[in-house]
Amino acid sequence: MQHSYIQLSKLLKLDIRRQRYQVGAKLPSVRQYAESQGVSASTVVRCYRHLESEGYVEIRAKSGMYVADWKAQQARAPASSAMAPPPAQAVQYEQLASLQHRMTQLYVLTSLPLTLPLHLALAAPPWYPCDALARIGQRVLRRDVLAFGAYATGTGLPALKTALVGHLTRCGIELGPHDLLMTNGATEALQIALRAVTRPGDTVAVESPVYFGIVQMLEHLGLKVLEVPCTASQGISLEALEYALEQHGSVRAVVVMPSFQNPLGSCMPDAAKRRLLGIVEKHNSVLIEDDAFGDLAPAAERPRPVKAWDRTGRVIYCGSASKSMAPAMRLGWVVGGRHQRLLESLKLSNSLTTPLFEQAVLAEFIASGALPSHLRKLRERLAATVGPATQAVLQHFPLGTRAGGPAGGWWLWIALPDALDTMALLHAAAQRGITFTPGALFSASGKFANHLRLNIARPWDRELEQGIKTLGLLAKAQQSQPAPNAGVGP
Amino acid sequence: MQHSYIQLSKLLKLDIRRQRYQVGAKLPSVRQYAESQGVSASTVVRCYRHLESEGYVEIRAKSGMYVADWKAQQARAPASSAMAPPPAQAVQYEQLASLQHRMTQLYVLTSLPLTLPLHLALAAPPWYPCDALARIGQRVLRRDVLAFGAYATGTGLPALKTALVGHLTRCGIELGPHDLLMTNGATEALQIALRAVTRPGDTVAVESPVYFGIVQMLEHLGLKVLEVPCTASQGISLEALEYALEQHGSVRAVVVMPSFQNPLGSCMPDAAKRRLLGIVEKHNSVLIEDDAFGDLAPAAERPRPVKAWDRTGRVIYCGSASKSMAPAMRLGWVVGGRHQRLLESLKLSNSLTTPLFEQAVLAEFIASGALPSHLRKLRERLAATVGPATQAVLQHFPLGTRAGGPAGGWWLWIALPDALDTMALLHAAAQRGITFTPGALFSASGKFANHLRLNIARPWDRELEQGIKTLGLLAKAQQSQPAPNAGVGP
Repeated sequence: MQHSYIQLSKLLKLDIRRQRYQVGAKLPSVRQYAESQGVSASTVVRCYRHLESEGYVEIRAKSGMYVADWKAQQARAPASSAMAPPPAQAVQYEQLASLQHRMTQLYVLTSLPLTLPLHLALAAPPWYPCDALARIGQRVLRRDVLAFGAYATGTGLPALKTALVGHLTRCGIELGPHDLLMTNGATEALQIALRAVTRPGDTVAVESPVYFGIVQMLEHLGLKVLEVPCTASQGISLEALEYALEQHGSVRAVVVMPSFQNPLGSCMPDAAKRRLLGIVEKHNSVLIEDDAFGDLAPAAERPRPVKAWDRTGRVIYCGSASKSMAPAMRLGWVVGGRHQRLLESLKLSNSLTTPLFEQAVLAEFIASGALPSHLRKLRERLAATVGPATQAVLQHFPLGTRAGGPAGGWWLWIALPDALDTMALLHAAAQRGITFTPGALFSASGKFANHLRLNIARPWDRELEQGIKTLGLLAKAQQSQPAPNAGVGP
Repeated sequence: MQHSYIQLSKLLKLDIRRQRYQVGAKLPSVRQYAESQGVSASTVVRCYRHLESEGYVEIRAKSGMYVADWKAQQARAPASSAMAPPPAQAVQYEQLASLQHRMTQLYVLTSLPLTLPLHLALAAPPWYPCDALARIGQRVLRRDVLAFGAYATGTGLPALKTALVGHLTRCGIELGPHDLLMTNGATEALQIALRAVTRPGDTVAVESPVYFGIVQMLEHLGLKVLEVPCTASQGISLEALEYALEQHGSVRAVVVMPSFQNPLGSCMPDAAKRRLLGIVEKHNSVLIEDDAFGDLAPAAERPRPVKAWDRTGRVIYCGSASKSMAPAMRLGWVVGGRHQRLLESLKLSNSLTTPLFEQAVLAEFIASGALPSHLRKLRERLAATVGPATQAVLQHFPLGTRAGGPAGGWWLWIALPDALDTMALLHAAAQRGITFTPGALFSASGKFANHLRLNIARPWDRELEQGIKTLGLLAKAQQSQPAPNAGVGP
């Protein structure tokens, strides 16, 4: 019987609690107890260990097992409710737009009992190469049983760096392993990039709308945000950026997602990317390029990152496996040009090193040559949903709603009629088990209150169709309510 | 034959390079090519995928396989040397004591071809429960094949938080799952703790000697370091701390390792811990408690952390599995009292979330009840080395050398005669394949130049004995050299 040690433990615990064995008393030896209870010696060993971990038994080296001072330990223990899994937290909707807590509250949404959670930029787990990764993981654990005992040092697992150098080279970036630093996701890469080139009080230019994680990061680093408008098709407006840099005088860094912008889904043409680099160079600033979605662009030809044209080391390139390969791994990387040594030092102070196991698994996955076909499949699946989802939004949402972008596919960026407030809409939708990201999160200054980002990286099915219909009905209901603060509506 | 797709790939690559298949030409279908080459269809599929990943083949959905523009891609690729594993880097000894680069350079030491690397605080991998963890890892991957496809949100895996709440409760800390946040090792916990309670320019009190990672972290955060002397037996001097806090007026935080201090190995008695807490409360400061080594203290009774007495939420407790359970996992945690919500927000900006797989494995390991017996074994193994290693140091090192501390066991903190310089000693020792941590790294202000930390968490054997002997000889050789800058020696 697999769990007989648990039954035995219950029995012995009862005997201890009823003081058949007093605190400090010596317990029977493993052999004695096994014989008296008619179980195997290994069951007794597991029982003693289990009760040691629960504070009932004390095992003294070369002496034996004793009854521990379990009452004192119980007195120190918190109420048993503390051991229960955490209950769903209450979402503080009013904090969703706060600079400091927008992400915390967005993550709290995830703990709600939702039927259709569409507020994060994630794809359906079966769309990732989970089988292949799990198989490789099994192999790694069989091959290197000491794997978890190793102490990771350095800037990343050499095998993964070699594999990524190959991948990034094919994306057009010239680099060697020393130019690459592994991080805990693109988030850590972006964070150390910002810390490398700014001091608190400095100004950083970002896209508008901008990924909400950047806004919270800048707030925590004490940096000022300069929001530069985007065009729906090409991302950050180069005219506006140039004007902003000229007017401001000292913008330390420009953070952009040139390929597949979050939330617009826009992709800059090569010529615009080169021009962007030229503008940053001319104004002696630094370009922090977030390419987390680059591998997912809907075209078969993967867009080149701006980093591909960087000859002066002025672009800090941040990449990630979280969107394209394996979300749970939290693996990212940074190619920092002239800032690389400082980035390495900052990474050590931030989180020392990056877990080894995931690096070993991803290295084998990429080296096996399976990445391009996986990405192709992922792109095809994404493309199959974007059409019907866009159609459904235009059909069910209030008149005047605009959705998507020319390069979209992972999510839809939806503009509702001006008077609508997507934060209130979220409140109503969450009660029906459906979520999205309200537009207000994509700005540090309250813009995009009538926008929303809807994650659609999942198979097109009746559930998603119904969800979009429900959202549309809720928006229409909001529209027909008297809006206390709205101006004169049509 | 397992790798026949690789042979086939070589063949096809050669055909493409010799332009038997021109760029843009359609390649044979899988079935055609399999028949013509006498291999299986799956071998051909793997071959095409492999060459796709190498940039020779382009797979177009619903159309077939084509020869990619491989020449253009090759032109973009760097010299082939970039693909080779990184060579050993040169250690910049002069940077080892720099505030910003001490850890980077210490990690570079690891890349040298060493026979006896004793410069990091790590134990021999077989001393960790690697088998059990690998077995659990296999089980997790079998049970949840979608594991790597999940997107982690929230403050940690509930199962691990439950297991850790149990462990920490037994250590004397009262908490529930909401009081606990998982981090990428204790390093990230310490870093967000400092960011939560300080602003650049603030002053933070640390122990002297202090773990070098803290010094580099404070430097990167723009914080001023106040070094408070320690006594060898009890850690930070409470008299000196109280004096320093009174004199300075506004010390934002005090960072300490009350249980098993790095590098002294000292452990504060309970009464001193309570007094420490009282001092911090009285001066309206915050105690950041680094308990990474608490589970490893040599006594059978695990020392209580200061956090156990905290009733006002003024202690930010940082723990880790990296020293006691699984170094490669990079799992840490923080119990932040009144700062918990801010810590959660900072963690999101720092690295979003913590990898799921390691959390699942560690949760099962702790829940199985195997932790106490593992820790007991680890303590016994450590204890078996500390005696003979201390003896060997006293026997072979120059007269006047002092080693160890009353609670030591994981490493030795060795004070050589005053005139000796352990940085120069390291330079000489590394050439013989032996390393240690020079004392100068354990201070921000150049103290402890004649000290060194020697990691001895490994079985006592002839190699370690010989290594200590060699270090002693090198120290004596340095002693007999005319020291250009030394004062009048005895």
